[in-house]
Amino acid sequence: MEFPSLPPKTVERLSQYRRILISCSQDGRTHIFSHELAAKLSNTPVQVRRDIMLVGYTGNLRKGYDVLELAERIGEVIDACETLRVALIGAGKLGTAVLSYFKGKRSKIEIVACFDVAPEKLGKRFEGVLCYHQNELPERITELNISMAILALPTEFANDAAKVLVENDIKGILNYTSANLNIPETIYLEQYDMVTSIEKVAYFVKQSKIANQ
Amino acid sequence: MEFPSLPPKTVERLSQYRRILISCSQDGRTHIFSHELAAKLSNTPVQVRRDIMLVGYTGNLRKGYDVLELAERIGEVIDACETLRVALIGAGKLGTAVLSYFKGKRSKIEIVACFDVAPEKLGKRFEGVLCYHQNELPERITELNISMAILALPTEFANDAAKVLVENDIKGILNYTSANLNIPETIYLEQYDMVTSIEKVAYFVKQSKIANQ
Repeated sequence: MEFPSLPPKTVERLSQYRRILISCSQDGRTHIFSHELAAKLSNTPVQVRRDIMLVGYTGNLRKGYDVLELAERIGEVIDACETLRVALIGAGKLGTAVLSYFKGKRSKIEIVACFDVAPEKLGKRFEGVLCYHQNELPERITELNISMAILALPTEFANDAAKVLVENDIKGILNYTSANLNIPETIYLEQYDMVTSIEKVAYFVKQSKIANQ
Repeated sequence: MEFPSLPPKTVERLSQYRRILISCSQDGRTHIFSHELAAKLSNTPVQVRRDIMLVGYTGNLRKGYDVLELAERIGEVIDACETLRVALIGAGKLGTAVLSYFKGKRSKIEIVACFDVAPEKLGKRFEGVLCYHQNELPERITELNISMAILALPTEFANDAAKVLVENDIKGILNYTSANLNIPETIYLEQYDMVTSIEKVAYFVKQSKIANQ
């Protein structure tokens, strides 16, 4: 079965549904309704049903969706067929937090190498992942068949690293620095800035204080 | 001037504009056009102009927006009047990465305490922020006037911590764990799951590989 390319927001929601499905399954649940999935994500049941129809799955009206079947179905659509190999740039606090958080979470995506410039980190393993010098990026990308990178280095070095990634044919970048990356539009860029998340929550805290005054 | 409550996505974009404005100003730029802001965020110029009109600011047709004036104007709308005081729950790799990343970035939001259960961390300072035992959350929230929390502890303990936060009148939570939190709707919850971001990029890398075959 062939599927059209999905929009980024849909992929994001499908990934979130799967996270919830896996956690429900670990809690011993076998079925879930669209309205329950919706409530856990501040989403509407209509949106949930529409997204899940997109992956070609239908639930049981009386029992809802089969938790494991749906998780698997989502995987068939969003996961790569072969394991996708990822480089982590920056093995500092955030980088190593990403490594330990992501470890073992998904079978089709593997962080296969990390890169840093600090001499004491080179040749060491973090969560089992070997650390190379950042200068070795071009050879290692080819050798290890890497097609995606996570940037967790200091912001001021992010654009230099991105340049090397682009030159070496990386197809997607997850940017945890606050740098505005100059990369071609053909490369998928996902930007996450902690400050923005913190400011967003802070704004609503402020509004709720005003409302309670 | 009074402003209506803004939707979460608008606050997120305003925060992102400010990040770019600050970085442009550091590069010595004094003005920026809406289409430039839009390009840096994969957004449309119309959306940028609409968002910026919402904060009651207008640019100069010929020169664009004044970078510093606009950054300040956004701050007047989204920042709290008094400094908003934040607790960080979990002083592990991710928690300390949040501390060092956020340090000094915004003047109106301050992480005033962190909480952990590891005996060796208690009483220590991380990036200047004192670490307390998690059992002390209720008294410290009151004493330190904390109204927001960041969850960076292991996922399995997230709901227990959230329960204590809710009982002690926290108004907003930024959740970095992959737990589905059971909290009342009156509390603003922002969920960030690294796995979702990684899966999103991985999906587009997969699509781009298929397209190039």
